[in-house]
Amino acid sequence: MAYFDAASAAPLHPVARQALLAALDEGWADPARLYREGRRARLLLDAAREAAAEAVRCRPDELVFTSSGTRAVHTGVAGALAGRRRIGRHLIVSAVEHSSVLHAARTHEADGGAVTEVPVGRTGAVDPAAYGSALRPDTALACLQSANHEVGTEQPVGAVGEACRAAGVPLLVDAAQSLGWGPVEGDWSLLAASAHKWGGPPGVGLLAVRKGVRFAPGGPADERESGRAAGFENIPAIVAAAASLRAVRAEAAAEAGRLRELTARIRTRVPRLVPDVEVVGDPDRRLPGVVTFSCLYVDGETLLHELDRAGFSVSSGSSCTSSTLTPSHVLRAMGVLSEGNVRVSLPPGTPGDEVERFLAVLPEAVAGVREKLGAPAAAPGTAPARDELVVDALGRRCPIPVIELAKVIGDVPVGGTVRVLADDEAARLDIPAWCEMRGQEYVGEEAADGGAAYVVRRIS
Amino acid sequence: MAYFDAASAAPLHPVARQALLAALDEGWADPARLYREGRRARLLLDAAREAAAEAVRCRPDELVFTSSGTRAVHTGVAGALAGRRRIGRHLIVSAVEHSSVLHAARTHEADGGAVTEVPVGRTGAVDPAAYGSALRPDTALACLQSANHEVGTEQPVGAVGEACRAAGVPLLVDAAQSLGWGPVEGDWSLLAASAHKWGGPPGVGLLAVRKGVRFAPGGPADERESGRAAGFENIPAIVAAAASLRAVRAEAAAEAGRLRELTARIRTRVPRLVPDVEVVGDPDRRLPGVVTFSCLYVDGETLLHELDRAGFSVSSGSSCTSSTLTPSHVLRAMGVLSEGNVRVSLPPGTPGDEVERFLAVLPEAVAGVREKLGAPAAAPGTAPARDELVVDALGRRCPIPVIELAKVIGDVPVGGTVRVLADDEAARLDIPAWCEMRGQEYVGEEAADGGAAYVVRRIS
Repeated sequence: MAYFDAASAAPLHPVARQALLAALDEGWADPARLYREGRRARLLLDAAREAAAEAVRCRPDELVFTSSGTRAVHTGVAGALAGRRRIGRHLIVSAVEHSSVLHAARTHEADGGAVTEVPVGRTGAVDPAAYGSALRPDTALACLQSANHEVGTEQPVGAVGEACRAAGVPLLVDAAQSLGWGPVEGDWSLLAASAHKWGGPPGVGLLAVRKGVRFAPGGPADERESGRAAGFENIPAIVAAAASLRAVRAEAAAEAGRLRELTARIRTRVPRLVPDVEVVGDPDRRLPGVVTFSCLYVDGETLLHELDRAGFSVSSGSSCTSSTLTPSHVLRAMGVLSEGNVRVSLPPGTPGDEVERFLAVLPEAVAGVREKLGAPAAAPGTAPARDELVVDALGRRCPIPVIELAKVIGDVPVGGTVRVLADDEAARLDIPAWCEMRGQEYVGEEAADGGAAYVVRRIS
Repeated sequence: MAYFDAASAAPLHPVARQALLAALDEGWADPARLYREGRRARLLLDAAREAAAEAVRCRPDELVFTSSGTRAVHTGVAGALAGRRRIGRHLIVSAVEHSSVLHAARTHEADGGAVTEVPVGRTGAVDPAAYGSALRPDTALACLQSANHEVGTEQPVGAVGEACRAAGVPLLVDAAQSLGWGPVEGDWSLLAASAHKWGGPPGVGLLAVRKGVRFAPGGPADERESGRAAGFENIPAIVAAAASLRAVRAEAAAEAGRLRELTARIRTRVPRLVPDVEVVGDPDRRLPGVVTFSCLYVDGETLLHELDRAGFSVSSGSSCTSSTLTPSHVLRAMGVLSEGNVRVSLPPGTPGDEVERFLAVLPEAVAGVREKLGAPAAAPGTAPARDELVVDALGRRCPIPVIELAKVIGDVPVGGTVRVLADDEAARLDIPAWCEMRGQEYVGEEAADGGAAYVVRRIS
């Protein structure tokens, strides 16, 4: 069995487990109490805060522990927006932030605030100049992840931080994916992260707010954690989180090099081993352990099941694997293929031969899914050519619309068009992506009864 | 060492520890994922929810896990108020709720809502008729704890639940102190609790919302826990919480009887062993393990330190032990003495001889503190009597104003008065309480330069 979904959650680091066990015995009492069990708990909490602050590179009194990374983001965004309400109600986020940031932005909008979503390029990174030009006199807060959770692309936090600093706008960095690898460089004002991403236990997030940043915590008052995280402190888990952060940092440089080589293997070899694959995300500026690719004519959920049967746990941004049946907002923002999407995120310690085994089983798994779905053979058909064809894929889920398109494109002459009727949201992303991969022209989308018509011109 | 503060936090139950360890290995993955680690985590989460729901006596799909009891209360209050906003914006709470409920009520008020605080009697219980008469056509939610966390008094949840049901108003019960002992009887609509109160790990609260109760979760959207508890589920802790709830319930009947006998010993014997003590809370309708008393002429913080040195960890509602330097709102609402306050809350398993040892060291600890503070001797002074005396205790913290009052009351003739000038908030509660205990007449409070004048007439 190989678990390749560290970007969702990492198994508990041995150091975290040990620290958790010790702290369950020593740190269960209320740290606000004056008796010895309380004082002992307080000491553990203070030490964990110092260790975490050192790893984050902030002062201990700038850092609080929350109950999750999501909670850290929600609290950070709401607190910074409320603290700067007099300056304005404009919030900037990138289009590829974690859902916790985007949901916080939706809440702000529903509450009458303004939100600018900065687009990303095809690699998933924002352009610092474009981000900077979104800054306005009424901007209360800007948010940017340190690296993307789905495709691994690192964001230009340093350059964006400079632009924000120049404009006097605080920058909140969601460092959930990168904090285990190293501190966030550059000029951030708020930082959020999640312990279970670096091998700490679930139930611990952290939120750092630099001194001098205006911050007004929302919700009912609570004395704990400087009023920024209500509820009894989860000290055993906090202690384990801090201990494991320190432990993974000690191994980070060596392990990053090793995982980077393994993911580079996947990046290079998957397109050779599997036809019709698009590897997405920045090839260089990326997280060490994450690599993402999409396979034409493949249904993501079925591929995940096949890989699970073969002993590999990976995740997917395909629409069929989400409860909303829409493709991942990250892939959509990048404008890349979403069907047959696979994210491999290697936990530290992954042995090279597991990656080799993955590369060995992947081609057959993909071929099996394609066969079941009746994907087109490599050579186009040779039926008599007609100038325009219509494919009716209404009511059919991706990748079927793309498969049907691929089957008939050879039936029109060069210069002829295929109109694909589809009502699956993913088609809007995947038909243009198919055209780009296949060297065909995507003419555009037209309204059609019961869905949309996507028009493709054959040019090769 | 004896830890007598189970009402703050209980040490981890052995069953919880075992379950936590097992679930750290099996339940660390994302339960929303389709691969085996995710499915395994989902199974554990589902099983924990079923076990907890059975203990609460609700349906599994009515129960979600939150990150703390405080969070369960905040979410429950806000969600019920938002869900019934069209009906009205009136909220009812008792005056002795946990601070999480009262803080949620303050937030609702700050947001333009109306709040009625139902008073309690001298035992700390609300009168069901008085509670019922607070119900209005625009009441959106009523809150009542199952039992008080500071004095152990059980609330008439059954009778209040009937009144609420008749008025069509949902009742939220904060069951934090009692859920380990048994399900909440009666007709509640929402229920909140906290695992670390019953020997579960920190980091787990639970919120039950009966089907049919209008509920609109606030804050940014999140798919987890039916949209009622944002952030990655803390499955190992949830599993441990459910397992320990089941375990303490299995032992509850026997253990309740045993602890009830031990706390009855304290209730009976402390007033015999220590002069000038008031035992507070209902003598019969009370939690098994909680007993609270206040000692005249004693500074709570110093007494806690003395008891800690003698090996006993207890808590206190005295003003000097709170960060705000005001007495506990519970003692204030009950109108009982707050100085020298001690809450003993025995964890399950407390041996009888620890209680005996406590009873052995308490008198000396109290006497030591009184001596240091120069508390009055039993016999009043015999100085020539004057009709009116003024004691200037401005700038001095409780119990000094009460001590000074007690020292001079014998210096005025029967019928004469003593005016105590004080600026410590606790005097407002403790001087009338002293009069009641001492059989003197509390005349009232007058404004005075730099504080207040509390007027006492000697009548015995």
